[in-house]
Amino acid sequence: MTVRRDAVGNVVGRYAPPGADGLPLVLGSHLDTVPDAGRFDGALGVLAGIAVVERLRSSGEGPESPVEVVGFADEEGARYGVAYLGSAAFAGLFDPSWLDLRDADGVTVAEAIRAAGGDPRDATSAPRPEAAAYLELHIEQGPVLEREGLPVGVVFAIAGQTRATLSLHGRAGHAGTMPMAGRQDALAAAAEIVLAVERVGRDGDGLVATVGSISVEPGAANVVPGEARLSLDVRHPDDGARAAAVAAIRQAAAGITAERRIGLEWVTLQEGGAVEMSVDLRDRLSAAIAAAGHPVRSLVSGAGHDAVVLGRICPAAMLFVRCEGGISHDPRESVAEDDVGVALDVLERTVRGQRAVRRSGWSP
Amino acid sequence: MTVRRDAVGNVVGRYAPPGADGLPLVLGSHLDTVPDAGRFDGALGVLAGIAVVERLRSSGEGPESPVEVVGFADEEGARYGVAYLGSAAFAGLFDPSWLDLRDADGVTVAEAIRAAGGDPRDATSAPRPEAAAYLELHIEQGPVLEREGLPVGVVFAIAGQTRATLSLHGRAGHAGTMPMAGRQDALAAAAEIVLAVERVGRDGDGLVATVGSISVEPGAANVVPGEARLSLDVRHPDDGARAAAVAAIRQAAAGITAERRIGLEWVTLQEGGAVEMSVDLRDRLSAAIAAAGHPVRSLVSGAGHDAVVLGRICPAAMLFVRCEGGISHDPRESVAEDDVGVALDVLERTVRGQRAVRRSGWSP
Repeated sequence: MTVRRDAVGNVVGRYAPPGADGLPLVLGSHLDTVPDAGRFDGALGVLAGIAVVERLRSSGEGPESPVEVVGFADEEGARYGVAYLGSAAFAGLFDPSWLDLRDADGVTVAEAIRAAGGDPRDATSAPRPEAAAYLELHIEQGPVLEREGLPVGVVFAIAGQTRATLSLHGRAGHAGTMPMAGRQDALAAAAEIVLAVERVGRDGDGLVATVGSISVEPGAANVVPGEARLSLDVRHPDDGARAAAVAAIRQAAAGITAERRIGLEWVTLQEGGAVEMSVDLRDRLSAAIAAAGHPVRSLVSGAGHDAVVLGRICPAAMLFVRCEGGISHDPRESVAEDDVGVALDVLERTVRGQRAVRRSGWSP
Repeated sequence: MTVRRDAVGNVVGRYAPPGADGLPLVLGSHLDTVPDAGRFDGALGVLAGIAVVERLRSSGEGPESPVEVVGFADEEGARYGVAYLGSAAFAGLFDPSWLDLRDADGVTVAEAIRAAGGDPRDATSAPRPEAAAYLELHIEQGPVLEREGLPVGVVFAIAGQTRATLSLHGRAGHAGTMPMAGRQDALAAAAEIVLAVERVGRDGDGLVATVGSISVEPGAANVVPGEARLSLDVRHPDDGARAAAVAAIRQAAAGITAERRIGLEWVTLQEGGAVEMSVDLRDRLSAAIAAAGHPVRSLVSGAGHDAVVLGRICPAAMLFVRCEGGISHDPRESVAEDDVGVALDVLERTVRGQRAVRRSGWSP
């Protein structure tokens, strides 16, 4: 492969043997990770791309298209709080305002690029590349494949996400002297909302709804909580279903707080629509899985991936690999070698099936 | 009055006009308070004692016993985390190990006593004083008297208290990739327990049960909580009723966590029995209230008071004064001048009714 590194640190290897023609087929994932992470989230997809190129080269057959393997520089957003910085730069979708983001030490993105020997202008001025397709192999980060005894699965959509903060305003009081009857306990109201979120999540097929953080004020053991604050995270591959779930939670929260004479402030932080993966690529991944002798399972990705960004410039799809216990972002993150073998076979077969494409014809 | 200050900073004024004889009748409350507090919690009872002595002196009649007015130095425990340091020293019940307690700046109690010109040995070596009785006037810090339109009330008991910490061990996971069905969400279990605590509290007459603090780990919006930690505070004037309530909460918590496959650790931090006030003193306070033309209301104190400690060396009782909105430990703490007038009349009448006592005959 010929290798280049771009301004933000994406590493791109290009394999274009004689006969390979047209737009590149891009394989990849990200090289960064989160603090205290495992070894597979991201890196496995980059290594898998390299392994597929190795197989193509050693077989001496194909591919019809050039293949590019990309290790994206920053998918998690751990340093600057914004996800997909790497793939956005690669795809020509890097927002110039991101250059001014600061990390915990006050270092801007522009300064970090310069410190690494790059030119910040290159991050924003890169032309939008043309690609035939993007294929990303990634660990599932969930328990579905393990539960069903399957080595791999095809992602049909990356879920849309609503994030909100709920602030509850009750009335603090002495835990010993405020009778139960007169209380406006913000935590008790929050507890009902937590359970309503869980109920709505359980009732919806393919829905996940989570309260991941909670805090109360004043937060002393002998004081009835006057204030409570909850995070809300709702995801579904269908935007309508997600909106309906959010509305149901909102209605439940309004009812609970009204009943308890508690004030409710609802701040929506993020509304991201679902991204459906390319039907054509999914079909080809499915066919490759079937040809490898395994049942085909389509599943949703609840987590975001670089495929969200690449899907804006070309057809994109993802292959998930079973991971132990669904555990991710944790040193216990683990995959079985046999499963990776199956995934490589599926990926290789899909790449070999790629026909040369002159222009993408893809409208973002 | 002749005035002395003891080693821990209690200020004691003694009024013993000719004819006053036997053991002293002690009036008082505490001079310390909490950060960001109001003006009446504690100080009102000290000023009331001084005002009663002023009335006795200006009338030239009585009392039969000497009267001591005490401003206790540290009731709240705000500096060292241990309540009743002042009254314990006054009552000869100061635990020598308390001298080694450190405040937030690392200053020990012994060092603080020395810095104020005292001798730490005096705090622990004071003989247990004999007293005929202890009467404490204090704001209610609750809404009962206000709700019933009464200026004052007689405390019949200071509630016993159980304090515990509940730790819930579930399983953290990605909020987007962990399906609802497989979750072991520590916060959802905690929410059910919060509502069970509230339910048990509401079902018990005279019971208060509170979860005042909660925290979850990892506590990120996009992570299903793996760990949760709750405080529990249960109070009742009857120790059996409190024990039954705690047992009911414990059983509910065990059921909730078992159902959800969540580990539960229950650590009891404190079990303090209820302290009943002297029947004789209550009867006299009640008679004085009736004589002042007001309905007699007996009520429980959910908060602790110096009377808990003084009750171990002599008959003790408390008179509560209505406070606005039941608000305390807050700058909005407020009492009506008229109510304080009624309370002073009741206190004066009760003090005047005190017969001389040679020896207390009180067995703690």
